[in-house]
Amino acid sequence: MVAQTRGRRLSESFRKLLEGKNYIFLATINADGSPQVTPTWVDTDGEHVLINTALGRVKTENAKRDPRVAAAISPLKNPYTYTLMRGRVVEQITGKKAEDHAERMWKKYTGRSRKPVPNQKRVILKIKPDRVSTPQ
Amino acid sequence: MVAQTRGRRLSESFRKLLEGKNYIFLATINADGSPQVTPTWVDTDGEHVLINTALGRVKTENAKRDPRVAAAISPLKNPYTYTLMRGRVVEQITGKKAEDHAERMWKKYTGRSRKPVPNQKRVILKIKPDRVSTPQ
Repeated sequence: MVAQTRGRRLSESFRKLLEGKNYIFLATINADGSPQVTPTWVDTDGEHVLINTALGRVKTENAKRDPRVAAAISPLKNPYTYTLMRGRVVEQITGKKAEDHAERMWKKYTGRSRKPVPNQKRVILKIKPDRVSTPQ
Repeated sequence: MVAQTRGRRLSESFRKLLEGKNYIFLATINADGSPQVTPTWVDTDGEHVLINTALGRVKTENAKRDPRVAAAISPLKNPYTYTLMRGRVVEQITGKKAEDHAERMWKKYTGRSRKPVPNQKRVILKIKPDRVSTPQ
């Protein structure tokens, strides 16, 4: 995709980690300045880390107020290794693009189609990584 | 232990999760207010969540400045479930107690004795959970 060439591409190993059925532990900052962390499904467009979540969740609201996030991700088959990331939520995407992306994420992680939750709207948190490291 | 009866005991399921060879993803706050998260080994005394780390590491320095932490922990054998925690680092313990505890942690997670790193001092981050939840 053209968009991918505009920024810095992710390393192949990090991209593969994000493309696998792995969980990312994403930390954001609450309104009172305390940290918040939850594991979520994850995806990538080759340049950004993409999280698909429900509109109104704590991390979505937190990222609107302070876009800085940190994350740790381990391959499910080898939790003894991990990659750390610091970055910023540069865009929150809603509408058809986010609903279609949610459907793809359900397929990726469960192998099944998504049963939409009534009145729930999906949002993509588009994260630009500023620093990625693999300490081991 | 007597100390355990002074505060609120952890639930049995959370205690078992902490006693297992599981990783906890611990989030702290950096000096600039941004979040930091790393997976670490974990332990409990029945009342607190105990992390054993090297003195001078980012999370240790962060917790001195702002004791508020958040964490997510999944059982290694079932990463699809997780428990979330918010709490405070109420004490940082160094000296023989921390070195001995490091040795026990090495045994727990690797089955082997620890090879001490020259000039590295260990510290126990003693965390009092304020809120523990299992969203699933």
